Amino acid sequence: MTETRKDFEQRRDRGNEFVLSSASLTTRRFFALDHDAYAAGALSTKTKELLGLTASTVLRCNDCIAYHLTEATACGATREEIGEALEIALIVGGSITIPHLRFAFEFFEGLKES
Amino acid sequence: MTETRKDFEQRRDRGNEFVLSSASLTTRRFFALDHDAYAAGALSTKTKELLGLTASTVLRCNDCIAYHLTEATACGATREEIGEALEIALIVGGSITIPHLRFAFEFFEGLKES
Amino acid sequence: MTETRKDFEQRRDRGNEFVLSSASLTTRRFFALDHDAYAAGALSTKTKELLGLTASTVLRCNDCIAYHLTEATACGATREEIGEALEIALIVGGSITIPHLRFAFEFFEGLKES
Amino acid sequence: MTETRKDFEQRRDRGNEFVLSSASLTTRRFFALDHDAYAAGALSTKTKELLGLTASTVLRCNDCIAYHLTEATACGATREEIGEALEIALIVGGSITIPHLRFAFEFFEGLKES
Amino acid sequence: MTETRKDFEQRRDRGNEFVLSSASLTTRRFFALDHDAYAAGALSTKTKELLGLTASTVLRCNDCIAYHLTEATACGATREEIGEALEIALIVGGSITIPHLRFAFEFFEGLKES
Amino acid sequence: MTETRKDFEQRRDRGNEFVLSSASLTTRRFFALDHDAYAAGALSTKTKELLGLTASTVLRCNDCIAYHLTEATACGATREEIGEALEIALIVGGSITIPHLRFAFEFFEGLKES
Repeated sequence: MTETRKDFEQRRDRGNEFVLSSASLTTRRFFALDHDAYAAGALSTKTKELLGLTASTVLRCNDCIAYHLTEATACGATREEIGEALEIALIVGGSITIPHLRFAFEFFEGLKES
Repeated sequence: MTETRKDFEQRRDRGNEFVLSSASLTTRRFFALDHDAYAAGALSTKTKELLGLTASTVLRCNDCIAYHLTEATACGATREEIGEALEIALIVGGSITIPHLRFAFEFFEGLKES
Repeated sequence: MTETRKDFEQRRDRGNEFVLSSASLTTRRFFALDHDAYAAGALSTKTKELLGLTASTVLRCNDCIAYHLTEATACGATREEIGEALEIALIVGGSITIPHLRFAFEFFEGLKES
Repeated sequence: MTETRKDFEQRRDRGNEFVLSSASLTTRRFFALDHDAYAAGALSTKTKELLGLTASTVLRCNDCIAYHLTEATACGATREEIGEALEIALIVGGSITIPHLRFAFEFFEGLKES
Repeated sequence: MTETRKDFEQRRDRGNEFVLSSASLTTRRFFALDHDAYAAGALSTKTKELLGLTASTVLRCNDCIAYHLTEATACGATREEIGEALEIALIVGGSITIPHLRFAFEFFEGLKES
Repeated sequence: MTETRKDFEQRRDRGNEFVLSSASLTTRRFFALDHDAYAAGALSTKTKELLGLTASTVLRCNDCIAYHLTEATACGATREEIGEALEIALIVGGSITIPHLRFAFEFFEGLKES
């Protein structure tokens, strides 16, 4: 079974503790920057999370997909909007992204129940 | 100097003629699909072009960046919106994307004059 | 243990249902195109599946490797032919592909028993 | 204009001299291994060159595409066979490979005249 | 839980047996070359293992990260040195590498107990 | 001819002006972070520049290779040390990195004359 949102977040939080308890200043500053980059500006946070979702899918990182799916959904992105962001990723990135689309759509279903 | 929009488009059109004069049905159908994917749906064409721009930047393809910059600008994307789409690409994709940001911002300046 | 063919196919089928129950027309058309691309033409389906196997290995996608291994074997590709397609991937893609060669050879052994 | 075969080969040979005049034993042994990997075995050299062409296209390396196009053509690969190897690359690798298909088909035309 | 060093090594050894029992001469020679490349030369083995760690992180391969972490630690690399090699990978490779930093720091903690 | 150091730096500086005159705070902060990451810590700046060189080579970015070659040389890295950092990249990243080794060794020769 694809990991649930809760299990994903627990695993991610534990991992981030390992990183941040060891990491030096540059790594900590990057984490802050990564957080700040999605703040609303000329583009809304929802659009930026969809940009992050498409980028994560063409780069084929399931943990990153899970994160941006969760955030985009929290910002009100609909199933249709998420489907279209994943569709652009499929066209740009090709069939090699399909396993990640399978993950993404299954994880997204789980989000609605959590 | 970074290629101008006009030179880019002439080079791209000539290349596409080479592809399409040789290519079989599957390749032609992919080209059609690639075109159709950016039609407005739940997301606007402008947002889809920004998704294509971010995806192209993290995958580091200047010709793809030039294409999506041209299309996004034609859809009314502002300098600030384009800057934020490229910024997400920089954060997701890291310093290895910086040469492509240099290309993107210089090509974008040229678009305004063309 | 490396997943068996049967478990892989059940997981893949379930994932594809999630994709196709949500996906829009462009995604469905891409899935059809992906299927059609491997039909025999100037190259046999077996050779095309080996091309897909090598491409999947240099791009480092185990699910794609499992799929093309299954299809290539069903088309009569021998252990030696598969080994040489993976060898080209190793030389082109370097040591970063080795974990995927480990997966591929173990999954291939399992195919013979299924 | 896309580089001709002759110009490509002169540039490649000059570059290889820079590498091999500086490189240590491991690098030299890798170059030998890279050469040997395409020798006929269970698969013909032509098929291996097509595997190299598809791998080079999904990894998006024009110099590698030029090399494998030249070798595949020298082994008797037809325009249709090359077109199908590039088509698999397009489906696996997505629209991000299109600039490399443009390069490949134009370079291939040039090969016939050289 | 992240795999322990012992479980990782057992899985890796079993996989290598699958590869090497099937593989032809070129693959075996590549494995030898891969081993020899990390021998001390102008750079120490420790520095080469850190290069392998950074390369594995930007290419996002957890098995490769586990291997180079184990080897670098065996050569005396400290937590600070490993943290800085991973930090360069984060800056070069961007936020898409963060899940691999989580893996790396957690696996590294486990190494100290094994 | 491969670009000289001087031409590379002029092109890079012009590009950075385009980026920084348009970019928002997050992009500017990333540029600062990218600069700071190579400061001496547990690892020397020279070793960090070699890590950057290997990472840039496996990710196949010539502009990044030119930058880290220049910096590593300025820190006293020898031809042998640079050759070994590139060799690790070749083994990890495979033959697809060879065009970038050709670039790197030719650009490095030019550095000595500048």
